[in-house]
Amino acid sequence: MYSIDLNSDLGESFGRYTLGLDDQIIPLVSSANVACGQHAGDPMVMRDTVRMAADAGIAIGAHPGYPDLQGFGRRDMNLSPDEAYSYMLYQIGALQAFCAAAGVPLRHVKPHGQLYNHAAIDPELAAALAQAVRDVDDRLVLVGLANGALVDEGRKLGLTTAEEFFTDRNYTDEGKLVNRNDPAALIRSEEEAIERVKNAIRDGAILSVNGKLIDLHPDTICVHGDSPTALAFVRRTREALEEDGIAIKPVGATN
Amino acid sequence: MYSIDLNSDLGESFGRYTLGLDDQIIPLVSSANVACGQHAGDPMVMRDTVRMAADAGIAIGAHPGYPDLQGFGRRDMNLSPDEAYSYMLYQIGALQAFCAAAGVPLRHVKPHGQLYNHAAIDPELAAALAQAVRDVDDRLVLVGLANGALVDEGRKLGLTTAEEFFTDRNYTDEGKLVNRNDPAALIRSEEEAIERVKNAIRDGAILSVNGKLIDLHPDTICVHGDSPTALAFVRRTREALEEDGIAIKPVGATN
Amino acid sequence: MYSIDLNSDLGESFGRYTLGLDDQIIPLVSSANVACGQHAGDPMVMRDTVRMAADAGIAIGAHPGYPDLQGFGRRDMNLSPDEAYSYMLYQIGALQAFCAAAGVPLRHVKPHGQLYNHAAIDPELAAALAQAVRDVDDRLVLVGLANGALVDEGRKLGLTTAEEFFTDRNYTDEGKLVNRNDPAALIRSEEEAIERVKNAIRDGAILSVNGKLIDLHPDTICVHGDSPTALAFVRRTREALEEDGIAIKPVGATN
Amino acid sequence: MYSIDLNSDLGESFGRYTLGLDDQIIPLVSSANVACGQHAGDPMVMRDTVRMAADAGIAIGAHPGYPDLQGFGRRDMNLSPDEAYSYMLYQIGALQAFCAAAGVPLRHVKPHGQLYNHAAIDPELAAALAQAVRDVDDRLVLVGLANGALVDEGRKLGLTTAEEFFTDRNYTDEGKLVNRNDPAALIRSEEEAIERVKNAIRDGAILSVNGKLIDLHPDTICVHGDSPTALAFVRRTREALEEDGIAIKPVGATN
Repeated sequence: MYSIDLNSDLGESFGRYTLGLDDQIIPLVSSANVACGQHAGDPMVMRDTVRMAADAGIAIGAHPGYPDLQGFGRRDMNLSPDEAYSYMLYQIGALQAFCAAAGVPLRHVKPHGQLYNHAAIDPELAAALAQAVRDVDDRLVLVGLANGALVDEGRKLGLTTAEEFFTDRNYTDEGKLVNRNDPAALIRSEEEAIERVKNAIRDGAILSVNGKLIDLHPDTICVHGDSPTALAFVRRTREALEEDGIAIKPVGATN
Repeated sequence: MYSIDLNSDLGESFGRYTLGLDDQIIPLVSSANVACGQHAGDPMVMRDTVRMAADAGIAIGAHPGYPDLQGFGRRDMNLSPDEAYSYMLYQIGALQAFCAAAGVPLRHVKPHGQLYNHAAIDPELAAALAQAVRDVDDRLVLVGLANGALVDEGRKLGLTTAEEFFTDRNYTDEGKLVNRNDPAALIRSEEEAIERVKNAIRDGAILSVNGKLIDLHPDTICVHGDSPTALAFVRRTREALEEDGIAIKPVGATN
Repeated sequence: MYSIDLNSDLGESFGRYTLGLDDQIIPLVSSANVACGQHAGDPMVMRDTVRMAADAGIAIGAHPGYPDLQGFGRRDMNLSPDEAYSYMLYQIGALQAFCAAAGVPLRHVKPHGQLYNHAAIDPELAAALAQAVRDVDDRLVLVGLANGALVDEGRKLGLTTAEEFFTDRNYTDEGKLVNRNDPAALIRSEEEAIERVKNAIRDGAILSVNGKLIDLHPDTICVHGDSPTALAFVRRTREALEEDGIAIKPVGATN
Repeated sequence: MYSIDLNSDLGESFGRYTLGLDDQIIPLVSSANVACGQHAGDPMVMRDTVRMAADAGIAIGAHPGYPDLQGFGRRDMNLSPDEAYSYMLYQIGALQAFCAAAGVPLRHVKPHGQLYNHAAIDPELAAALAQAVRDVDDRLVLVGLANGALVDEGRKLGLTTAEEFFTDRNYTDEGKLVNRNDPAALIRSEEEAIERVKNAIRDGAILSVNGKLIDLHPDTICVHGDSPTALAFVRRTREALEEDGIAIKPVGATN
């Protein structure tokens, strides 16, 4: 039977600042990526988010990012692999304590923003991040861009990995994302996006932007809950998948 | 047989800024309290400090503080117990990941600076900190001021606690520290200080500033390695204790 | 002819986080207090907010706060007067540069949150803040709680001061705010609040919570633009004042 | 008569962390570049450093850097020109307030670390930094790498610029620094370094690493006071220059 994980980036509020409709997206997804206080989130937000996700019974993962709250982890920072390794340990560990307090396991790690983007194309950085995940707990699932360097390096270290698929993006013949500056980067029809993910799940392949059939095995899809429109699309996606007999569940889940 | 723990606050460097002679104090103590990146320390410093302490075979503990790098955790911050609880989880968890990566257990938690001082006199704050420790791992040893609120609250929650003794301070008839503004606060003779700690270890009591015998059961003594003079005093203290047959070992250690 | 200033706290967004309906409140007020990047705001937000306020022709002031973004400057921090003085210089200067770049003068300084609250009751802190304002530019207007320590200390240093009135609060016989925990603290009727401020402007006095006539000379009223309801109340207040012939203009403005 | 400025990066301490022998280098230099609290420094350090420099009568400049205390402004951050402009205004303004409080003018601005390095080679970034300086005060002297983009862009905007010379570095035929990875990058003899700077001041030219005579007009030299050895070298350099009749004074100074 086919299955897919729906993951969402949560716990991105900070102090007096609120971001995201976390309580409304949680019932729609199978995995929560929780910000760890360096690019977003703070200890009180982490506690509340982990409790909400634990109550809903969804899988909880760490969502570590560059230490740049001002830039929300979306600005490049030139960290050495050693530095990136240390920031990963720090953030994963911090979130793990909130999971322990809530009586639930930490299940996965998905880097955020530019750290995610760099880890998809820089094998040395990717290896450092994968090593950090393994050094904390080798049962953690490492989530990265499908066909990217991070999942490659994770597999080399023996980690379970989850390949993330972007439903609204076109891919090159090599299985990489078409650059955002290219007019063909985005798939603008929601119906086409949903059709595409269903095919990818069943076939392990999609058509590239040039019409070539390429390998792509999506384990998880990132969905967003930052507006009512976004929530409605998540609902439609979920229904379409379930109607097709595709189960929504976390990577590595046994039931 | 009598024993005592010698603990020291380590890993207080930050980025380009170096503090403390950590490599020189580590061979002299049995426990390291490692700063967790909020009042001092950063992920790279934490990694290096945990590795050094693990290599030396001493017990490693978290040293969480107020989130105030500028004030080194020594300025009052009016955190609610709920906030303090969350900051504790965050910092303990972060350090725990570095211990996991180094293949050693996290053994204890000792709050830093004003968080330590407040937790010694404010039962509600103390209860929140003790709860955080228990919620991460109920085998962790909670270190607090001897006869203070933190060890009281830790015991109520079933935690193993360690009472910290200040060798260079006088105590009131109630077993509390004489206020620093009082001319009688400090014991200025090193010999007297060493004599005093030996007696306290053997007798479970010391003479108060008024000459009254008061209960005090030191489990651990904080020593400092921030100057050659300080290091020499630690060496003399250690030798004096060992000559008297008092073993230097972490709280809860079985050998 | 009577006049009053309407001031609002603006520029409180930070990075990815948006707060306040600044563009909608600006046309309704005569003075903007702009956050200076320590409790809220960042350099890009400061630049944009100063430009918007400059374009609207309203008076621009610095709104310095405790260096605690996480707590939005609303948590107590035990800064020494010397530290508070230095943080004030830092923040006022930072905002002044954005005013210089926009070709408009910095007009006033109003501390934020707990810094404001402490400065109203702690003469030593108040003196340090007033000194900082004078040391940057002795033509700056210092805004503080009516009948509070900050305006007292400002006057002693020869600064022009502005006494801030809270339209929705009751006052004691001594002219201080009734404590928020007291059920009589708040005035819940908007009509009564508006009536009250009009009387205070004309009479230089209000009735205390016990019915005693007390001196109170409001120069400025703080209004909020964080919701459509709040904006509507500001509009009504402004209209009611203007209908009564009370001009809305910044403190120290000559026209 | 020939003259040169000796500048040094000061005020790099932070909170509990001390860096640099500021009190010992100040008597040896003509200009202080004071850190502005984003990559190093804090409001108390800024106040003390400005006071010390003002008492010594040397020129005071702002030393703005990337907002990355953890990385000491030495890690790349991919700021847009607009962001860099805003961070510059913020930091220059903050320092200016401390100068105002000390009764001395702010004289110059020299970017720090990677911001300096990028501004030397990226004209778009350089233009943004130069614009920020001009927008605060068009009498400020803009300090940048000799023959680099920052001084070029500053001149285009009509600013007085100062070209900084590195006494211990070789230059390419195009007048740029030989890359640090090249074995020929460094000039290791102190005598040669001093000879070189004297020639450059008098001739407006130096020999490139390939022996070609290239234009180079040093207005200022950066010297370091972070160790007794470094201080001794500054003393020797200063004496050698004065013996040769080269006056040590700030750029733009009239006496």
